Amino acid sequence: MSIFHRSIKPDTATKESEISQTKKQKMDADYFENYGDIAIHEEMLRDKIRTNAYRMAILKNYKKFYGKTVLDVGAGTGILSLFCVQAGAKKVYAIEASEMAEQTRRIVKENEMEERIEIINCKVEEAELSEKVDIIVSEWMGYNLLYESMLESVLFARDKFLKKDGHMFPDRASLYIAPITDDDYTDRLCIWNDVEDFYKVSMKSMIPYARRCISKTVQIMCIPQEWIQSHGCQIFTSNLKTSSLSEIQKVQSNFEFKCFGHSTIHGFVTWFTVEFPDDITLTTSPYTDETHWSQTVLHIRDPFNVEQDTTINGSITIKPNDSKPRFLDICLVHKKDDGHEKIETFLMDEHLT
Amino acid sequence: MSIFHRSIKPDTATKESEISQTKKQKMDADYFENYGDIAIHEEMLRDKIRTNAYRMAILKNYKKFYGKTVLDVGAGTGILSLFCVQAGAKKVYAIEASEMAEQTRRIVKENEMEERIEIINCKVEEAELSEKVDIIVSEWMGYNLLYESMLESVLFARDKFLKKDGHMFPDRASLYIAPITDDDYTDRLCIWNDVEDFYKVSMKSMIPYARRCISKTVQIMCIPQEWIQSHGCQIFTSNLKTSSLSEIQKVQSNFEFKCFGHSTIHGFVTWFTVEFPDDITLTTSPYTDETHWSQTVLHIRDPFNVEQDTTINGSITIKPNDSKPRFLDICLVHKKDDGHEKIETFLMDEHLT
Repeated sequence: MSIFHRSIKPDTATKESEISQTKKQKMDADYFENYGDIAIHEEMLRDKIRTNAYRMAILKNYKKFYGKTVLDVGAGTGILSLFCVQAGAKKVYAIEASEMAEQTRRIVKENEMEERIEIINCKVEEAELSEKVDIIVSEWMGYNLLYESMLESVLFARDKFLKKDGHMFPDRASLYIAPITDDDYTDRLCIWNDVEDFYKVSMKSMIPYARRCISKTVQIMCIPQEWIQSHGCQIFTSNLKTSSLSEIQKVQSNFEFKCFGHSTIHGFVTWFTVEFPDDITLTTSPYTDETHWSQTVLHIRDPFNVEQDTTINGSITIKPNDSKPRFLDICLVHKKDDGHEKIETFLMDEHLT
Repeated sequence: MSIFHRSIKPDTATKESEISQTKKQKMDADYFENYGDIAIHEEMLRDKIRTNAYRMAILKNYKKFYGKTVLDVGAGTGILSLFCVQAGAKKVYAIEASEMAEQTRRIVKENEMEERIEIINCKVEEAELSEKVDIIVSEWMGYNLLYESMLESVLFARDKFLKKDGHMFPDRASLYIAPITDDDYTDRLCIWNDVEDFYKVSMKSMIPYARRCISKTVQIMCIPQEWIQSHGCQIFTSNLKTSSLSEIQKVQSNFEFKCFGHSTIHGFVTWFTVEFPDDITLTTSPYTDETHWSQTVLHIRDPFNVEQDTTINGSITIKPNDSKPRFLDICLVHKKDDGHEKIETFLMDEHLT
């Protein structure tokens, strides 16, 4: 027996009332400790789609950066701060809450930018700057855009530190959803048939339970384009210059799809885009090159068949989990043509598959 | 940015004194909830080396099982219980603490063995049986043999429920260690050089920190045989029929290796074997077919060179973490020839890579 803790348990979230303040602080400490781990930074640097989108957005907009002051929220290795100085920024405040800040300082020195980049090792909510800034840059996006809820910290920084006519990099974020067929779905269940061949005992009766388990699991994966069974539908868009905290704290949207053709729908996929000034877009769409965010797949309990122009409509709600606000509660309601509404709930926590 | 929580943080373990009883119960609850997740059972059933070793051990020893009573500790899908009935067991008590027990019951019924197999849905420590049993079967092994500390429950069951002349399946467990070279080690670090090519900023100064992070991480992986740089050394063996709890609660052993030839040592690998009556052995050795346990790799802080017959000696201590007893603290002391002793510490927790 051996465990990998990567499953989702929507039923077992601790209630708000059971969470002490100490525990919340502990959770926050865990969050920032994890970012100290090198593997995450390696993964982000290896993701050229991500890093080059920021690089291009900053360098192409050098006129906005030249001689200006910048705040980098969640600086990590400091790479965005370095880009800002390369674009001509006069001063960059690089806020990094994790122990990584010590390394950020080393990297800034290696690039001889210590006179222009000031590392601030605390949470942005606790930071004090001696001036307001012209630009905020941040790479705050999590899986399914909002996982980790770091966007709240960015908007906090905007309200406290950004000049009235300042710029946000990125300045728009949008989330999309589409129904999918999952060609691997049947393979995942076949072990329960194979057991008879392998070991001469029968476990077919497990299949309904196995299907229920799959439907509770939020999966992070790059899906083949062919799985997508309708045009995507935008379920969230936010102007990061003007959006209020309440707008990003709860995503709630209806959707309607007309299916491309005959297929079995096993669930839904989400992806996101962020946009920068001067028409630069970073997308995690399944129609473009892979990023380290992949896409987010939500399996439904009972797969169903569709034909060309079958309508699927419904709604999705995404909001921070009450007791663990860096995690997400997702509620998906869907209906095929005039059929019955189905309700699916997910907790997107650290046990992703 | 996006997190996968799979890193090891030896420095951040919560202290015993900070752990309330409620929290301990919560940890236990998490442990048993996780096993309810289907993916783990799928993985174990797909592991034919594991499952066939138990199947063969039970069926080949049918004379021991025929007409006898058996206790299956941590039954899961119940597959070992089914094998026991196939081998002729008169009665099997299948203890399963997780919500999986409901499915175990369904599988037993599907195989028409409900008259011989009794499912008991509680922890073994809380179970009461109306009789003592002739045989205990259990698949209790975790990564690095002892991760999860389920062996304690098996010995508890032995002391409470096994007849004096009863049998344990398996009845022996051993752990081995060997020094390795890691051919991927350099690749892992190269991103910090590549950044200059990719993005025109320099991050070479991260390499020492990256090496430190790798050395803190316990990695579960199947290593190529060629990585092994000396014969393995047994660091633990236990007769499960007679071992006391204290013997398995702390592994402490010296080791000495004579290296095969010129190489760089990046760390150590461990693997285990368990043995059953009638000479049937299940091994997770890197010299045989892969199992879902893979091997456990412990990277050292400063890789060093060796030549043929270079001696590496030292000691290893493995014990349950004080505050999270299902996790393991590992302390490795090693020395090349007459060099200085190096001490490496690891916490083997849910953040494995």
